[in-house]
Amino acid sequence: MKRIYSITIAVVFLLQHAFCQNGIVVIQTDFGLKDGAVSAMKGVSMQVSPTLKLYDLTHEIPSYNIWEAAYRLEQTAQYWPKGTVFVSVVDPGVGSKRKSVVLKTKTGHYFVSPDNGTLTLIAKSLGIEELREIDEKLNRLPGSGESYTFHGRDVYAYTAARLAAGKITYQQVGPKLPNQVVSIDYQAAVIVNGVIKGNIPILDVQFGNVWTNIPAKMIKELNIQQNDKIIVEIFDRDVLKYSGSIPFVSTFTSVPEQQPLCYLNSLLNFSFALNMGDFAKKFGIASGPDWKVVIQKAK
Amino acid sequence: MKRIYSITIAVVFLLQHAFCQNGIVVIQTDFGLKDGAVSAMKGVSMQVSPTLKLYDLTHEIPSYNIWEAAYRLEQTAQYWPKGTVFVSVVDPGVGSKRKSVVLKTKTGHYFVSPDNGTLTLIAKSLGIEELREIDEKLNRLPGSGESYTFHGRDVYAYTAARLAAGKITYQQVGPKLPNQVVSIDYQAAVIVNGVIKGNIPILDVQFGNVWTNIPAKMIKELNIQQNDKIIVEIFDRDVLKYSGSIPFVSTFTSVPEQQPLCYLNSLLNFSFALNMGDFAKKFGIASGPDWKVVIQKAK
Amino acid sequence: MKRIYSITIAVVFLLQHAFCQNGIVVIQTDFGLKDGAVSAMKGVSMQVSPTLKLYDLTHEIPSYNIWEAAYRLEQTAQYWPKGTVFVSVVDPGVGSKRKSVVLKTKTGHYFVSPDNGTLTLIAKSLGIEELREIDEKLNRLPGSGESYTFHGRDVYAYTAARLAAGKITYQQVGPKLPNQVVSIDYQAAVIVNGVIKGNIPILDVQFGNVWTNIPAKMIKELNIQQNDKIIVEIFDRDVLKYSGSIPFVSTFTSVPEQQPLCYLNSLLNFSFALNMGDFAKKFGIASGPDWKVVIQKAK
Repeated sequence: MKRIYSITIAVVFLLQHAFCQNGIVVIQTDFGLKDGAVSAMKGVSMQVSPTLKLYDLTHEIPSYNIWEAAYRLEQTAQYWPKGTVFVSVVDPGVGSKRKSVVLKTKTGHYFVSPDNGTLTLIAKSLGIEELREIDEKLNRLPGSGESYTFHGRDVYAYTAARLAAGKITYQQVGPKLPNQVVSIDYQAAVIVNGVIKGNIPILDVQFGNVWTNIPAKMIKELNIQQNDKIIVEIFDRDVLKYSGSIPFVSTFTSVPEQQPLCYLNSLLNFSFALNMGDFAKKFGIASGPDWKVVIQKAK
Repeated sequence: MKRIYSITIAVVFLLQHAFCQNGIVVIQTDFGLKDGAVSAMKGVSMQVSPTLKLYDLTHEIPSYNIWEAAYRLEQTAQYWPKGTVFVSVVDPGVGSKRKSVVLKTKTGHYFVSPDNGTLTLIAKSLGIEELREIDEKLNRLPGSGESYTFHGRDVYAYTAARLAAGKITYQQVGPKLPNQVVSIDYQAAVIVNGVIKGNIPILDVQFGNVWTNIPAKMIKELNIQQNDKIIVEIFDRDVLKYSGSIPFVSTFTSVPEQQPLCYLNSLLNFSFALNMGDFAKKFGIASGPDWKVVIQKAK
Repeated sequence: MKRIYSITIAVVFLLQHAFCQNGIVVIQTDFGLKDGAVSAMKGVSMQVSPTLKLYDLTHEIPSYNIWEAAYRLEQTAQYWPKGTVFVSVVDPGVGSKRKSVVLKTKTGHYFVSPDNGTLTLIAKSLGIEELREIDEKLNRLPGSGESYTFHGRDVYAYTAARLAAGKITYQQVGPKLPNQVVSIDYQAAVIVNGVIKGNIPILDVQFGNVWTNIPAKMIKELNIQQNDKIIVEIFDRDVLKYSGSIPFVSTFTSVPEQQPLCYLNSLLNFSFALNMGDFAKKFGIASGPDWKVVIQKAK
């Protein structure tokens, strides 16, 4: 009996070693899904280890839109288990001198990406535990790189897969860098004299809702309650694009169809919408580091 | 030898327990794949158990289109193994008083969804074994729900993952409801005096083919044979949108290019197409509960 | 100790048998992801064996575009491990007399497809080890085919899943055919008197880059060096669509924004692009067997 028990332990250990060291890779690119680029990245990962679990974040990041890449990581990483390896390939500077890095956050997530601003938000919210530059001499798909390298496939996917599968340690990624990533400038959320300023990091594109980076706790600090009217101004750089007074509600159906409302979105950030409509389209609102929002409670 | 045998049994049992209690989750939403919402749902599922197998039905349900959500479940569920857990999040009434439920069908499939009409067709075709309301106090992602809940992620994906992974039983979903789901009204397929009436539940969007809910056996009942001409009328509510006489064939190439044909689709339902063309676009046909079709054999 | 060792061996064997005989299926179609067709194919595969690993190549092949299907396989198959089973369903002749086949290449990959030209490029680049016709009497989803068969689901996905899961051997697919596939005609890459002719198999659609089938080694043969000017002519059949002189560079940023460049793409083939722009759109270039390119080194 004792023997069976110890063998069972061995088997469980074996299983864990083979299947349970997380082994999850989540992939984000601006490649779209019409061609074979993402599939080639997954094929390389399967060559590294067929026991990996490969998932997509999105491949519909607009071409070269580093800001949106940064935001999508920020939006989702916290929901994946500790030990998950994210790969993000939005890389307008491919071939130029941006560094290829792997960020380990204080939460125990890994991010494989060019260090071009993609890590701006995640580094701030999850915290930098350590940053390493990928040593491409060691971490590159064998046989690639003779005269050209598709970095997403040959370096990023390959390195992420090897890290996730435990074929290399985090230390073996390459040399340690200072704990600082290349960052994009934007309006952080602040309260000054009862007025909140913030940024529109992204639209909820499918529904046309406008999301800000203003957290629920600032709304609470201003003592904003359900059904209070909020005075809203939205700017693209310094140009006013929208101003109005909008009720703060907890369900879309609290206002008539096609009427504006503000609410806390799924990340508990302050947001704007039209009930059954498209706020962004109706008022010409977009998103990115240049978009600013100013709100206060109506008196 | 006997010992090895019994240990192998134990190991197989262990494997089954860990990997083989189906563990499949199939996800459908109207979120699209441009943002991180679907990925967050999958991350939550992986947190519940990294051994789950997560698949997509589609995330391109048109926003708030409950009817199409109902149809996609109907179209695919029967092809997945017994024990598969489907999650469907098409939820225009989020925050309102629609119930969150898990339907168990007589075929042994599970459907996690708002009870808003999404279950109309699957409940009829696969049969209601039992219906339970999700007890959101017990079945909600820990840490969510302080001031807002993204139901797709925090309740539906979380509950589906726990059910699929065997972390809760079906009974632990929540209280039993009467065996009845909220249903959308539509023209069921019927034969009266040699005339068949039916509905256009959906278009085969990629190719512009028009699918009805009229089953092969009704076609047989009218003694319709290959190459018979069929008199077809298509209505949007009561407005006639198309009428014509179309041959019933078994292969698209039986008619010249751009010519209409009728055939049995992959679900063995009566359908219309243009060979190498787009029937729906050419004749302005759409789909949904309001669309009706009337057919009979030409004399 | 010896016993534990031998049992561990047995367990490892068991694991391999259950999980490691590749078991990977990669699916390509022109169905899109808006409806349930791809999901039904995956459901059927999971019914065959829930331990299979299902991946997508792309489902956005333009409807009926066999050439592009051929190219996507060519672009990606080499990156997947030996033993991977690809399923490609781009089948304008469904129901007509094209054969359903499984190609085994010299590299040990399998391709399940209608033999309609889809295998043109992969057969040439990876080599034909053996070709077999699917015996649809044996290899068809039980219960399907009474009056209609959705070949992608009932024959191709089902056969691929059974082959990948080891439920049938390659021999059990069906009778052996001669080592030749149906092939589409196109301009192979050739050098004549210092002039290279080739084909534009595909665009890098997401970025508008124009890819040719001219390999790096031909560029080397012409002694083309970094920053050399290349004289380029692009034809649609015999109509000249573009002519110009373009520098050959290794990074996009070597030329000013919106300026043309030529480079070696991720498959080490000669390609055209605009730095931060869309070459194909700007000059009206498309791709396919009819598109030809003629290049030589400027003097």
